[in-house]
Amino acid sequence: MRLEKVQEVCLRRGIIFPSAEIYGSVAGFYEWGPIGFSIKKKFIEAWRDFFIKPYGFYEIEGSLVLPEKVFEASGHLKGFVDPITQCENCKTIHRADHLIEECTKMFVEGKSEEELTEIIREKGLKCPRCGGNLSEVRMFNLMLKTEISPVGGIPAYLRPETAQNIFTSFSRIFKAMRGKLPFGIAQIGKSFRNEISPRRFLIRLREFHQAEIEVFFDPDNPECPFFHEVEEKDIPLLTREAQKEGKEASMINVKEAVETGLIPNEWLGFFLAKEFEFYTKLGIPPECLRFRHMLPEETPHYSKGNFDLEIKFDFGWKEVVGNAYRTDYDLRRHSEFSKKDLSVDVNGKKVLPHVVEPSFGIDRTILAVLLFSFREKGYDRDWNWMKLPNFLAPFHAAVFPLVSKDGLPEKAREIFEVLKKELEVFYDEKGSIGKRYARADEIGIPACVTIDYQTMEDETVTIRDRDTKQQKRVKIEKLVEEIRKIISY
Amino acid sequence: MRLEKVQEVCLRRGIIFPSAEIYGSVAGFYEWGPIGFSIKKKFIEAWRDFFIKPYGFYEIEGSLVLPEKVFEASGHLKGFVDPITQCENCKTIHRADHLIEECTKMFVEGKSEEELTEIIREKGLKCPRCGGNLSEVRMFNLMLKTEISPVGGIPAYLRPETAQNIFTSFSRIFKAMRGKLPFGIAQIGKSFRNEISPRRFLIRLREFHQAEIEVFFDPDNPECPFFHEVEEKDIPLLTREAQKEGKEASMINVKEAVETGLIPNEWLGFFLAKEFEFYTKLGIPPECLRFRHMLPEETPHYSKGNFDLEIKFDFGWKEVVGNAYRTDYDLRRHSEFSKKDLSVDVNGKKVLPHVVEPSFGIDRTILAVLLFSFREKGYDRDWNWMKLPNFLAPFHAAVFPLVSKDGLPEKAREIFEVLKKELEVFYDEKGSIGKRYARADEIGIPACVTIDYQTMEDETVTIRDRDTKQQKRVKIEKLVEEIRKIISY
Repeated sequence: MRLEKVQEVCLRRGIIFPSAEIYGSVAGFYEWGPIGFSIKKKFIEAWRDFFIKPYGFYEIEGSLVLPEKVFEASGHLKGFVDPITQCENCKTIHRADHLIEECTKMFVEGKSEEELTEIIREKGLKCPRCGGNLSEVRMFNLMLKTEISPVGGIPAYLRPETAQNIFTSFSRIFKAMRGKLPFGIAQIGKSFRNEISPRRFLIRLREFHQAEIEVFFDPDNPECPFFHEVEEKDIPLLTREAQKEGKEASMINVKEAVETGLIPNEWLGFFLAKEFEFYTKLGIPPECLRFRHMLPEETPHYSKGNFDLEIKFDFGWKEVVGNAYRTDYDLRRHSEFSKKDLSVDVNGKKVLPHVVEPSFGIDRTILAVLLFSFREKGYDRDWNWMKLPNFLAPFHAAVFPLVSKDGLPEKAREIFEVLKKELEVFYDEKGSIGKRYARADEIGIPACVTIDYQTMEDETVTIRDRDTKQQKRVKIEKLVEEIRKIISY
Repeated sequence: MRLEKVQEVCLRRGIIFPSAEIYGSVAGFYEWGPIGFSIKKKFIEAWRDFFIKPYGFYEIEGSLVLPEKVFEASGHLKGFVDPITQCENCKTIHRADHLIEECTKMFVEGKSEEELTEIIREKGLKCPRCGGNLSEVRMFNLMLKTEISPVGGIPAYLRPETAQNIFTSFSRIFKAMRGKLPFGIAQIGKSFRNEISPRRFLIRLREFHQAEIEVFFDPDNPECPFFHEVEEKDIPLLTREAQKEGKEASMINVKEAVETGLIPNEWLGFFLAKEFEFYTKLGIPPECLRFRHMLPEETPHYSKGNFDLEIKFDFGWKEVVGNAYRTDYDLRRHSEFSKKDLSVDVNGKKVLPHVVEPSFGIDRTILAVLLFSFREKGYDRDWNWMKLPNFLAPFHAAVFPLVSKDGLPEKAREIFEVLKKELEVFYDEKGSIGKRYARADEIGIPACVTIDYQTMEDETVTIRDRDTKQQKRVKIEKLVEEIRKIISY
């Protein structure tokens, strides 16, 4: 399976690998090595350029540790739970809902502990690992807990999403920035969930990276001023009806979907259309993208519409972006629990803004990019390679002396130093030139620059294109320009 | 005091303010609002450009939650402790060492719980708050603890420094990147310490941002290939002798300091010189910077030299960068505890690399930048302003219509939209133009662009320089160029 092959490359090349690996590591925690971090950094910049900067949204960075009160108000303390059951024999812990769904094909989302226990008893379900009896189902809170201060510790949690910083800080930021509605605040950062069974590499992690935007708007004036940019676009939408009937997603015009109420407002329509464009740019084939309208039983009571952007992986469709029309739920709850008025003045009236939220999973998205760009050994050459979108490539170019003698390494170093001032470049002189091309291809470097004997005579080098494997000779003085041509998007 | 004034500006303008503020917040946790985050982001980019990119160091991003074993090996589990004593009457918790030092002027760093208790008893020290009796001293570990997985939780900690990810991942990264010594790995990210009494705004935080570099080198070949860049430079060094004699720091040539052994190797000398240059660029006056050679009793047993870059604040000299020659301590400990060979091949021999580490406190540094750039109302104008280094300014320019009628706002919006494509700009039309200048000055925006009636006639605008308050008229088509001139550094 492709996932395992890409995971092997990530490990071997130090792209993404388990944290504290030398101690055996704990499932669900990863380190981003130099190549992985470079890709992630470029992804974040591209995301900012695409979703934040053109629209005047503000970006903040809040603390990861937040006191318990925040999560009482947000509902996480009570509601952010998974039902678990433990095998009385081998002690393995299972997600009770997943186990039931897998064994019985029943849909049990939202059912209570008692109901789930009853189903297990009724259907005679046993531990899938050893056949042992399963314990009563109990709810397990997914937040990682800690305590602040030395004595009589203050209970606090690692945030399970970045959004709560935005809600609790909304009022101050709105005033400080002399805001008016609509008003968007974004945050990119780590979040934490104590998943019961982290799995599938970057798909289900305990520590992960999110990019979230909260757009606050007047519910009496829900127009999105940027909607005209997208209203002609079509997006692949999997309606509730289609899901019931077992059908696939179909392309639907965004404007029409908003007008007919299928998508509840322009803001949500705007984000869905932008996301479709962005993920296509990332190299995900359009037919492997869909927006699934969440079913009523999957939708929180306060939501007026949730649409997950899902990607079709080898192992099935998985959410990579959650989009939700959260109404005034978050600000209302935080108003109630903090006893602070979080409403704003709009044309002389007090309004508690409504919120539309797109929430991006960065790790899953990058995993998708890696999987879809991966070309396995034998596809068109004798080694693996990555057809990464060039704007995400970990290095813009690699610089190689053909052989490591006769002054070629010195000349190559000199060229490397010049390129380094304007581009991100990688230097390597160890091994045969073929092996070095293969190594560069494997991590998706778009251009390889080779310094050979001719270079010493006429100040030209060869530049090799990752995708076409074509080489051409160029003057050293034109090199930066040539590389820029290859990496521009 | 300046700190309180700057803190007030930070709060009011939403630059940096307490987390979960609407719930009363917990000491030591802050949010970076749009302006603060913009400054921090630019600081991080400037840091990368200065310390990482020119030297080919690699940057990684590791997980914040790490299992207990990592900290057994690193020594944090046993040694990262503060001695505390509690008032038996008012229950206040005090740092026992600080309390003794303040009351008796004794230097007690490194003393055991028993020794500290004895001093308290002997000297008859009481609670400085209520005069109550003080409890026995006990050691309190400063790491924030959590537990992973639902049953029989795995003990884990929020990392107290970013360095441990680098040490535990060194071997994989070195191999994956086909490394050779010297080899540098950097990391920028959050760290956490459960400080007993967070204080002075960003000086002592529980959640903070670090930038660390670990340079791994062969102890038999400790030359720094970049040392020639700095060897002519002088740096303000406070030697151990000067400290004993109560003297100030004096300017010492870096090369000489390395040759005489005052600074233990070229790598450390290189970083000290680079830091002095960088902090000067940040606007900290050279006379408010010094490198303090840590005293033997402040230096860990394995260290061959620690030098703190300190800044002179109103409230005294405080460390902003710790520099340490950590020898092979970290890799040796992790080798022992993980039973993995972390040595590398160097010219046919096995070597456990030595490490030099500069560790930057980003929050403290930015606080210093804000404090030293702050100009109080009355200094040269009727309002506060910030003479921020322009490369750190939260916005490159502000765009104002002179009045909000007669088509001026529309024209200003149009210009704003054009500038936005190339620069970071802020738009405001509310309030008098004088007030808007004042507001822009207060957050250090280097240039204000005003659209007035003349603009409508001849396509010119005024551009006002923050520092000189001078205005000049320029053609709209020259505006980007003019602003770039102001912000270039």
